[in-house]
Amino acid sequence: MAGPPVCVLGLGLIGGSIVRATAAAGREVFGYNRSVQGAQGAQSEGFDASTDLAETLTRAAHTGALIVLAVPMPALPNMLAHIGDLAADCALTDVTSVKRAVLDEVEAAGLQTRYVGGHPMTGTAHSGWSAGHGGLFARAPWVVSVDNHVDAAVWSIVTALALDCGAVVVPAKSDEHDAAAAAISHLPHLLAEALAVTAAEVPLAFALAAGSFRDATRVAGTAPDLVRAMCEANTSQLVPTTDRVIELLGRARESLAGNASVADLADAGHAARTRYESFPRYDIDSIVVGAENWREQLAAAGRAGGVIRSALPTLDSRQ
Amino acid sequence: MAGPPVCVLGLGLIGGSIVRATAAAGREVFGYNRSVQGAQGAQSEGFDASTDLAETLTRAAHTGALIVLAVPMPALPNMLAHIGDLAADCALTDVTSVKRAVLDEVEAAGLQTRYVGGHPMTGTAHSGWSAGHGGLFARAPWVVSVDNHVDAAVWSIVTALALDCGAVVVPAKSDEHDAAAAAISHLPHLLAEALAVTAAEVPLAFALAAGSFRDATRVAGTAPDLVRAMCEANTSQLVPTTDRVIELLGRARESLAGNASVADLADAGHAARTRYESFPRYDIDSIVVGAENWREQLAAAGRAGGVIRSALPTLDSRQ
Repeated sequence: MAGPPVCVLGLGLIGGSIVRATAAAGREVFGYNRSVQGAQGAQSEGFDASTDLAETLTRAAHTGALIVLAVPMPALPNMLAHIGDLAADCALTDVTSVKRAVLDEVEAAGLQTRYVGGHPMTGTAHSGWSAGHGGLFARAPWVVSVDNHVDAAVWSIVTALALDCGAVVVPAKSDEHDAAAAAISHLPHLLAEALAVTAAEVPLAFALAAGSFRDATRVAGTAPDLVRAMCEANTSQLVPTTDRVIELLGRARESLAGNASVADLADAGHAARTRYESFPRYDIDSIVVGAENWREQLAAAGRAGGVIRSALPTLDSRQ
Repeated sequence: MAGPPVCVLGLGLIGGSIVRATAAAGREVFGYNRSVQGAQGAQSEGFDASTDLAETLTRAAHTGALIVLAVPMPALPNMLAHIGDLAADCALTDVTSVKRAVLDEVEAAGLQTRYVGGHPMTGTAHSGWSAGHGGLFARAPWVVSVDNHVDAAVWSIVTALALDCGAVVVPAKSDEHDAAAAAISHLPHLLAEALAVTAAEVPLAFALAAGSFRDATRVAGTAPDLVRAMCEANTSQLVPTTDRVIELLGRARESLAGNASVADLADAGHAARTRYESFPRYDIDSIVVGAENWREQLAAAGRAGGVIRSALPTLDSRQ
């Protein structure tokens, strides 16, 4: 299916890569970027880009485009206000790494009816239009929200975007996505940073550090502003996750000091890692979008390792 | 210089690799292994190996060999008792990852006069004679102890062994080595395990986990017995190191919950990682072994990033 035109707001690493990937998939796509540099970068490679937000949103409204929010978190409220004024009926998604915070902003702007959150789980260490490329999403997981408010038609439109970009779609509730991101992405940043600080205080540590320490602290090399943006937007999930890891470390510490044993943590950690290595993956292909309990069925399938590799049947297509 | 014969006790990954590397360097080398399998493995590749401990130690005493303890920690007391009976005058070193615990055992056996601890900082995920190879130590750091009791002549013999194996020598005090190992090796195991357990409890986490989580939990795949052996032998250093990381995480948690900010940890962690990346390395070549304060000079040089790549001058060689 061709799908509606795609209107990308923000032509950085992710937004710029979506422009390239959707164009390559034969979709009509146009973009907006606040800075002239990003828009000119896109134009110079033959893409349809503007620095005029009102003009871009008016065009989106007239063409029934899917609007993709690809701007940083702090720019969201202002952007949503403009969309509410000029393109409130367009299908709307985003590519931000924390889903509850974005949903709250969307609801505050009164735009939740046509909104389905998204998160392509990929990236590079670089940013900006020039860092992007059309293959960025190839085979990467792209979370598409199945929150209670989600409309089946908009959900199919957003899922088609992710598939057109070459990603595999993992359906998930926003809060579950954020809890998972806290555990697998945000907490590892805090651990790497705490480890780097701890080792820096031991005189001989850097002199002896080698491969495993370098690996364990690698993400502490991420720019502090990026780490803060991720972690601080996910405070409600990251606080209890951090509490849990502190509890586990505290118990191991007591067991080590009291009984010279770390058996419990060593056994549990090895078992958890082994479970992760053997975590099953399978294709979701038979859930009907829009059927009774479709959102809950998709959320359960995503939790169980299911991914979507091609468009699912819809109630309409089966009638 | 040729150096004395090398007598390796224990022909596993490290001991077996020392046999191969020293033979390749032209040294006379013979080994002992408790199990027939390991000894036969060495013999079948043309090396001089035995399952008779008394015979091996008697030969070491007669030839003035350097004895290398390459057995697991629990086997040390019994092995040291036999050395005390049959080869008490031989120079003695070890390859164990925790140096204070070994030094305590050596002192308990009354063998510290001719003992200089060592720790080649390399390895693979596999174990046993068949996992070893002569290139295992190439350019790897090999810590050689400069504790207060260390004899200059024995120190030169042990350093020559490490250099003959292709390693670079980092001189260090045993307690400083153990504090560094707690921070760069043992604590990372606890963190990886606590992270794996935490993520395993979050329903969607494994479904979304990708490269960075896999890297962050990789060492949780290590066999629990090996993790316990390392961590539990280094309890006195690992407890305060774990306390420190819990303190840093606890502060970040309070700052996140109270002010929605992880600025302090993000900034400090990034700064520490940046310092690690730019940690200087240089060659130690002018410190005279046996001269006044030579042990303290070497310990300070090791802390500052100094490594030894060829034999240092000794008081004898300069006279």
